[in-house]
Amino acid sequence: MPALVKAESARGMDLKQVPIPEIGKTDVLIRVQKTGICGTDVHIFQWDAWAAGRVKPPLVVGHEFVGVVERVGEAVEEFKPGDIVSGEGHIGCGHCYFCRTGQGHICRTMKIIGVDRNGCFAHYISMPQVNVWRVKPGIPHEVAAIFDPYGNAMHTVMAQPVNGRTVAVIGAGAIGLMACAIARAAGALQVLVVEPQEHKRKLALETGGGFAFDPREEGWEQSFRGHTPDEIGADVVLEMSGSAAGIHTAFKMVRPGGDVALLGIPPTAVGLNLAEEIIFKAVTVRGINGRLMFQTWYQCERFLLDHKLDLRPLITHQCSYRDYLDAFDLLEKGQAVKIVLNWEE
Amino acid sequence: MPALVKAESARGMDLKQVPIPEIGKTDVLIRVQKTGICGTDVHIFQWDAWAAGRVKPPLVVGHEFVGVVERVGEAVEEFKPGDIVSGEGHIGCGHCYFCRTGQGHICRTMKIIGVDRNGCFAHYISMPQVNVWRVKPGIPHEVAAIFDPYGNAMHTVMAQPVNGRTVAVIGAGAIGLMACAIARAAGALQVLVVEPQEHKRKLALETGGGFAFDPREEGWEQSFRGHTPDEIGADVVLEMSGSAAGIHTAFKMVRPGGDVALLGIPPTAVGLNLAEEIIFKAVTVRGINGRLMFQTWYQCERFLLDHKLDLRPLITHQCSYRDYLDAFDLLEKGQAVKIVLNWEE
Amino acid sequence: MPALVKAESARGMDLKQVPIPEIGKTDVLIRVQKTGICGTDVHIFQWDAWAAGRVKPPLVVGHEFVGVVERVGEAVEEFKPGDIVSGEGHIGCGHCYFCRTGQGHICRTMKIIGVDRNGCFAHYISMPQVNVWRVKPGIPHEVAAIFDPYGNAMHTVMAQPVNGRTVAVIGAGAIGLMACAIARAAGALQVLVVEPQEHKRKLALETGGGFAFDPREEGWEQSFRGHTPDEIGADVVLEMSGSAAGIHTAFKMVRPGGDVALLGIPPTAVGLNLAEEIIFKAVTVRGINGRLMFQTWYQCERFLLDHKLDLRPLITHQCSYRDYLDAFDLLEKGQAVKIVLNWEE
Amino acid sequence: MPALVKAESARGMDLKQVPIPEIGKTDVLIRVQKTGICGTDVHIFQWDAWAAGRVKPPLVVGHEFVGVVERVGEAVEEFKPGDIVSGEGHIGCGHCYFCRTGQGHICRTMKIIGVDRNGCFAHYISMPQVNVWRVKPGIPHEVAAIFDPYGNAMHTVMAQPVNGRTVAVIGAGAIGLMACAIARAAGALQVLVVEPQEHKRKLALETGGGFAFDPREEGWEQSFRGHTPDEIGADVVLEMSGSAAGIHTAFKMVRPGGDVALLGIPPTAVGLNLAEEIIFKAVTVRGINGRLMFQTWYQCERFLLDHKLDLRPLITHQCSYRDYLDAFDLLEKGQAVKIVLNWEE
Repeated sequence: MPALVKAESARGMDLKQVPIPEIGKTDVLIRVQKTGICGTDVHIFQWDAWAAGRVKPPLVVGHEFVGVVERVGEAVEEFKPGDIVSGEGHIGCGHCYFCRTGQGHICRTMKIIGVDRNGCFAHYISMPQVNVWRVKPGIPHEVAAIFDPYGNAMHTVMAQPVNGRTVAVIGAGAIGLMACAIARAAGALQVLVVEPQEHKRKLALETGGGFAFDPREEGWEQSFRGHTPDEIGADVVLEMSGSAAGIHTAFKMVRPGGDVALLGIPPTAVGLNLAEEIIFKAVTVRGINGRLMFQTWYQCERFLLDHKLDLRPLITHQCSYRDYLDAFDLLEKGQAVKIVLNWEE
Repeated sequence: MPALVKAESARGMDLKQVPIPEIGKTDVLIRVQKTGICGTDVHIFQWDAWAAGRVKPPLVVGHEFVGVVERVGEAVEEFKPGDIVSGEGHIGCGHCYFCRTGQGHICRTMKIIGVDRNGCFAHYISMPQVNVWRVKPGIPHEVAAIFDPYGNAMHTVMAQPVNGRTVAVIGAGAIGLMACAIARAAGALQVLVVEPQEHKRKLALETGGGFAFDPREEGWEQSFRGHTPDEIGADVVLEMSGSAAGIHTAFKMVRPGGDVALLGIPPTAVGLNLAEEIIFKAVTVRGINGRLMFQTWYQCERFLLDHKLDLRPLITHQCSYRDYLDAFDLLEKGQAVKIVLNWEE
Repeated sequence: MPALVKAESARGMDLKQVPIPEIGKTDVLIRVQKTGICGTDVHIFQWDAWAAGRVKPPLVVGHEFVGVVERVGEAVEEFKPGDIVSGEGHIGCGHCYFCRTGQGHICRTMKIIGVDRNGCFAHYISMPQVNVWRVKPGIPHEVAAIFDPYGNAMHTVMAQPVNGRTVAVIGAGAIGLMACAIARAAGALQVLVVEPQEHKRKLALETGGGFAFDPREEGWEQSFRGHTPDEIGADVVLEMSGSAAGIHTAFKMVRPGGDVALLGIPPTAVGLNLAEEIIFKAVTVRGINGRLMFQTWYQCERFLLDHKLDLRPLITHQCSYRDYLDAFDLLEKGQAVKIVLNWEE
Repeated sequence: MPALVKAESARGMDLKQVPIPEIGKTDVLIRVQKTGICGTDVHIFQWDAWAAGRVKPPLVVGHEFVGVVERVGEAVEEFKPGDIVSGEGHIGCGHCYFCRTGQGHICRTMKIIGVDRNGCFAHYISMPQVNVWRVKPGIPHEVAAIFDPYGNAMHTVMAQPVNGRTVAVIGAGAIGLMACAIARAAGALQVLVVEPQEHKRKLALETGGGFAFDPREEGWEQSFRGHTPDEIGADVVLEMSGSAAGIHTAFKMVRPGGDVALLGIPPTAVGLNLAEEIIFKAVTVRGINGRLMFQTWYQCERFLLDHKLDLRPLITHQCSYRDYLDAFDLLEKGQAVKIVLNWEE
């Protein structure tokens, strides 16, 4: 079958023929229909320090997908050929403390598809049945393809006390924009967005953001504070830029006693003035990784089915998997938000 | 000054002249502008069993108000004449465990204005400064007059995990209708309303309710369940009818593991099948009384200032205090939702 | 194999030969070593109204056990013959909202072993692998046999805010006594026990209770209040008697703003004065059923391994399964707390 | 009256005569009996960078005390001469969002006694009545004198989910040692202590610590992990050293999904690898400052009155205020844990 393969320890990705995966007794073979491209995939494409330290070529890349069940292992009873499914790409051991208490995303032997084992940028992927998620009618397939990052955004928002609060989002990439929409739908009174790129600020205002600020503009901080009660700062800040500047902004703009969620991954150490940025302000900081299995998936489903959200405007491009080089190019240039690749002919 | 006085242990209320209240060193004298009439006032008017057991005539009635500071005690520094204020009518002792931990509403020696001490249906009321609440510009005065019941509704909603959930409201009186609006603004995915009166069901759909059900109609329960995920029932039910039927409905329609808030006051004991209604379903039940001092007041203020709510449609009538008999008549007949009396000439 | 069977719709239980259970691909066959007798088993023995309405004879009874893995289904990888195991007796569907979010105990199609399907009072039992729990070295086998009720007690305690609080336990049966020990180990400042039977009050004082009260003695309520801060009542009350009197006591003795857990199952409806017992006091009530899968099991394991608890004093009797009639007799007469039957010859 | 005064911007502190403070209408004049010396006082004595940036000489130092009410302002009704009291040294404005929601410790205009306004190292101190705390009979006066740091420790512990968990304490100074005792009493299954000084490790084992580790010893980390379930690390880590090494240890030794409380104040920025230390591990970090007004004070009182704690072993020295130079010397040399100065002749 065709697949996008990280073949060597170098920049790039190859479209190659690889064998259709085998499935075990409790696995499900899924024929892939659509896949989303994540920032992680771009890192693997670029072969940056993180990728070089984690990924072992050759590897089929990709972890965001929707597809159709093709075949199931002999002990699988929940799924049958023809079911429309997506899947949780964090494959836990299934029997440790974390896996048995709804925290499989931090299982110590967890493998991520497309990073630690073969992924979904291919005609077929094999998944353990416990990681397969049935897609309900009414959910657009291109949206089902991006439940993975949508789940990141959902978990980030829902792990904070956002309702009745002023929420700030630092960094309006795909996940940041989803977080704007989710925070607003989840009861935030006001969503303030900090993002240097103009086209993303504009998109933020269309997806739940009330005000958007360019952090390179003088006086933006005072203006931001003016939109918070008594200018005390935002109740909750969602850091999604992964930059040192964004992280310092998060701690500066959060109110005393407020909450900061860290989702963006800074590539290097960040020097924090813990006394002023966290301790004296009595701030709560939550590191966010993956999504809850499967509390978050249910939340993702319900926000869509109850028409509180529409993620389609964030899918700025759709194309055939054969055009993957163009897609990666757009993403590297920051000209796309979310790109979905089509694997059906 | 003129005041509405419960003069005797019998049905009715008299418009009488009474002395302007004295103020102590830490009290504030407030010239009343507008007052809301609460169901509790109707009970006192009717002199039902509860009122007869609690209220000691003669008493100036009323606990929902907005007004202007007229004069302050010598140790008051936070307020000055001319300030527009409302007030928390639960007067706690100020130094017990409850009062010092934000739970003054359940202080064991707490007095309620208009119930246990003279209230606000008068040209002036005296309040301890810690119970006075400054009204911010941008909040309509007739809405400031009803922060007390609005706070009941806010506290009921915010004490439950409503965001990302399906919320049901049983009983669409003034507080139930406010709860619909608040629940929706606070991130409920769906608000389902159960109310026998048609004009209230209609108002519910205009203030946040997604679907409204007449509990006297056959098959309504199946239809209600059809609006909950996999027909498991509502995640959260807010019981605001105070009727035995409403309470049983709450426990029947909540999903296993869900939350029921009890705000409506049933006049007599209710026979509960605790095993089926609460224990086997693993339901959490919260008794709701008053509002948090002053967490709830800040929430009330912010939902308004951030334009997430408009309570004005619920104020179905405004009139002079001199027409109070007409107002009570409308409320007794169920033809009004919230009535605001004007005390300015 | 020999098994204790509810053979007919009448009082009693028979020791009979039945076939060894079959196992499916994902099941585990367990050779039973020890089993605990639960109050539920006594109800089934007595064939009371609840049992007659729920149980369909013939049925192998029993749900508390420890044993050795004998054989595993072909898709089972986590367990192998010789493993010492206990098991969660609530068998969920595995793929509904509840099962996938750690709430399998309230799955709507959940079956309980020994109640809805064949149980553990036998030489062998078949269990789905996801319900099997590995017993760690250091845990006495007779204690591993009673993890099911121990888990009820643990979940009841840990679902309330007990640490730094005064906790009351109403009803000192096996689960109530375990709750005393757990509450104390979990940081309750004071554990107050209400129990009419003297030998259970005595045992309560040996397992974590600070003071024990006989509710038939005059003046006990004042004495109880004297052991709570400023006589405001207990912060948390765990109702484990299932009697109407116990339930009213729970609501009377809890402080305003406190928490009541309902675990005991009242056989008939209880008339509650919701206004006074729950609403005006702003009490939170939690219905408790089963235990969390598997958060509670980890807690049970760790309290034992860290030597915070010893449950062995509560196992007042151990005997051969052949003497089951004597065991049920002792339990019916209230002369035993927990009895463990030995199934090894 | 005599007072310990920071008279100049230089090392040291002077015992001088200063005027007895005036009191306002709502203030209480307290005759000081005993005072605790805090690390903060040592910083002011040493005149380090923090002190030089914050304190404006001349200033009466000190914020930990117990005393007797001497006189009250004319609007004070809760206290009368002769009452034994301690006091919350964070003086909030009383009317902002923080002050009115139980978070006065992070009020933006909050002043700390002995830091921002005159403190308690004197024969008399004036305090607003809302900051005065009545000391109950049964609490030793020397312990009442240190409710301020005891409250820091209590708030740190109680803001984390410690019961049923393994808790680690990094740094066994006075607050760290109190935290060991509180964590154990509050239901921690195991308390692990990391502290380089041997006499403090020894004291830690006497006050609730189960195992104590010298971080300069090779292999200590493996040994530490061996005391956590499945060697996953501690559920909760309380960072009380304020050193960069201690902070990195906290993030290294906490388990995935665990909680880290930051109380110790690092003097300079700390370079954190946020990806590995917080984000991928999904850790929650809470900055801790002061104590809740007055939830924490009630907790402090009750742990003592219910005999769950004895803090007296941590008061290693008591002496007359005249010997303050010796006391500061012992503290600077690390030879004392908590020193209480006696102000009664």
